[in-house]
Amino acid sequence: MSGTTELTLGDLGERGIQEKVFQPRYGAVEGFGDDSALLGAVSARSELVATTDSCPTPLVNLLREPDLYHAGWLLATINLSDLAAAGAEPLGLVVNYTLPKATTVGEFERLLDGVDDCCVAHGTKVAGGDIRDGEVVQLTATAIGRCGPGRRLRRSGAQRGDRLILVGSPGYLWAAALLETGQATLPQPDRAEVWRRACRPTAQLKAGRVLAATGLARATMDVSDGLFATVRTLCEANGLGAAVTGEFELDEWPASVAEQCGLPPFALAQTWGDWGLVVAAGAGDVQRVTEALRGEGVAAQEIGTLTADGRLTSGPENTPWQGIAQERFSASSWHGGELSTLVTEVLGRR
Amino acid sequence: MSGTTELTLGDLGERGIQEKVFQPRYGAVEGFGDDSALLGAVSARSELVATTDSCPTPLVNLLREPDLYHAGWLLATINLSDLAAAGAEPLGLVVNYTLPKATTVGEFERLLDGVDDCCVAHGTKVAGGDIRDGEVVQLTATAIGRCGPGRRLRRSGAQRGDRLILVGSPGYLWAAALLETGQATLPQPDRAEVWRRACRPTAQLKAGRVLAATGLARATMDVSDGLFATVRTLCEANGLGAAVTGEFELDEWPASVAEQCGLPPFALAQTWGDWGLVVAAGAGDVQRVTEALRGEGVAAQEIGTLTADGRLTSGPENTPWQGIAQERFSASSWHGGELSTLVTEVLGRR
Repeated sequence: MSGTTELTLGDLGERGIQEKVFQPRYGAVEGFGDDSALLGAVSARSELVATTDSCPTPLVNLLREPDLYHAGWLLATINLSDLAAAGAEPLGLVVNYTLPKATTVGEFERLLDGVDDCCVAHGTKVAGGDIRDGEVVQLTATAIGRCGPGRRLRRSGAQRGDRLILVGSPGYLWAAALLETGQATLPQPDRAEVWRRACRPTAQLKAGRVLAATGLARATMDVSDGLFATVRTLCEANGLGAAVTGEFELDEWPASVAEQCGLPPFALAQTWGDWGLVVAAGAGDVQRVTEALRGEGVAAQEIGTLTADGRLTSGPENTPWQGIAQERFSASSWHGGELSTLVTEVLGRR
Repeated sequence: MSGTTELTLGDLGERGIQEKVFQPRYGAVEGFGDDSALLGAVSARSELVATTDSCPTPLVNLLREPDLYHAGWLLATINLSDLAAAGAEPLGLVVNYTLPKATTVGEFERLLDGVDDCCVAHGTKVAGGDIRDGEVVQLTATAIGRCGPGRRLRRSGAQRGDRLILVGSPGYLWAAALLETGQATLPQPDRAEVWRRACRPTAQLKAGRVLAATGLARATMDVSDGLFATVRTLCEANGLGAAVTGEFELDEWPASVAEQCGLPPFALAQTWGDWGLVVAAGAGDVQRVTEALRGEGVAAQEIGTLTADGRLTSGPENTPWQGIAQERFSASSWHGGELSTLVTEVLGRR
């Protein structure tokens, strides 16, 4: 890093930090770059993985009143989602909270309820943690999980010609945003269900385990920063490009919201907040993979093909994919962004 | 918690939060209250533990110029120290950094060097992590470790009449503070070595494993917030009190500093920052425990006895122990405190 030490992290941006600082330092560590870090084998039957993430302000708290319940739920989900991308079974979560002294016990209990409810919903628990006072709320957790030997899902291992599969049902969070900001409408029970799913996204743990069991997923990542950012990172990890179809069959409610807003379904499918997985699988294995997932009640759709030319394109004409990519340490970082600009940035000007 | 939901966390203080919020919610989780959380058995040969801690501003950065190296080193040590208190062998660290965009790459590399060097010194490694931008520096890590079956050290299990043993060599950090603030002096090579040890405290991992192997430690805690706070918490976990002798044989350099400052050796021995362990052992086992530790090059001294009356006393007259206790979420929280008041608070007015 000689010559760059006076640069700031903001100059480098998240991708620059990865490339110029972390890669030279940690690139040789097995599992570097994967969603979950590898701790090693603890027995002949398991490999341990761990992952840590901090929780940004949940979008649903910008859309309605702040409620730490949603932050707690999201904190657990974003960490468990990284375990899902490793095909791991969670062993537990350890949490680390920095909270202002003025936080009420009632607000704090909502935070803990959110974390605990999310853990229960995913079949795991809070095993321990730490708390300290500070001026700025900071919610961090670490999830630890276990993979079967040789079954750990990785980011690398994809091949040219592999198909990309999007696992999960995207579009609920941003459909909720469009509903809350008055740009679309749904009958009340449906709208309430969209809101519920936006507030309580779940990690694809079951899908991860199914994928690990099939042995057919050549590369896997979770969609934490949007589909474009995920596919781009997965491509970079494999020295490949991708041609996505730009088509997607949304669930009924997000589809209706997209239609009312004049958005193509893919515009909602490529947003973030629903914690799906992107999987690369051999062209001949796509049907077995999607059937195995659907057999366990998990939605999955083919969305494109990995290519050798390093480009990221969309649609039948292979035009450049103008996807969103939230990058930390950059001017466009969405952490703490304003709602009014977020909707435009994520869904584009219409 | 009905009736208390409008109280703030600052009203409760750290101990109140533990008692009124965490105990009712998590008290039934095995390992609750121990320095490391229990994740469960992963094989017939191991139990997994994990711990998470954030790093406060290192005292050495208040004494001289700020250097993120020291924060990085301390971040690793404080987490590994909790594994030591469980008698665990570390499997790895996952780190979580929030840093301002204006942080230079050079400063960031210093942080990473500190964490990495400390991990190497303890025979472990950074397995993975996360980074995001934020206005306030926040450094958090999680350490994951493995204990032999039935060998995990706990806070509870001590009995009336057990002896307290302080494991490690305390007093270096606050000797350095007294040297740096001109209240004592040492010849240069000695002073440099005191400073080095103050900057690079190590976790008692070897001692923890020796203790676990002997099976003679009935309760164990690390000294993270000072000896008084540690003994008080250990007593509360066991429904006991403690009578400490108030005597301690410091290493040569801290002893000289204490003498020059008119401090009894115990005043330096009961400070924080040196990451020792407190162990309760049967009166008849003290010699075997200390010899086992010394055989591995680890210092250990008996400092008192656990009593049935619930009081914390010091000295031959059993006067109330006026120890320091840094408590989070309280007015006296030392996180981010001023150096001038810290020296007085920790070492007392002289």
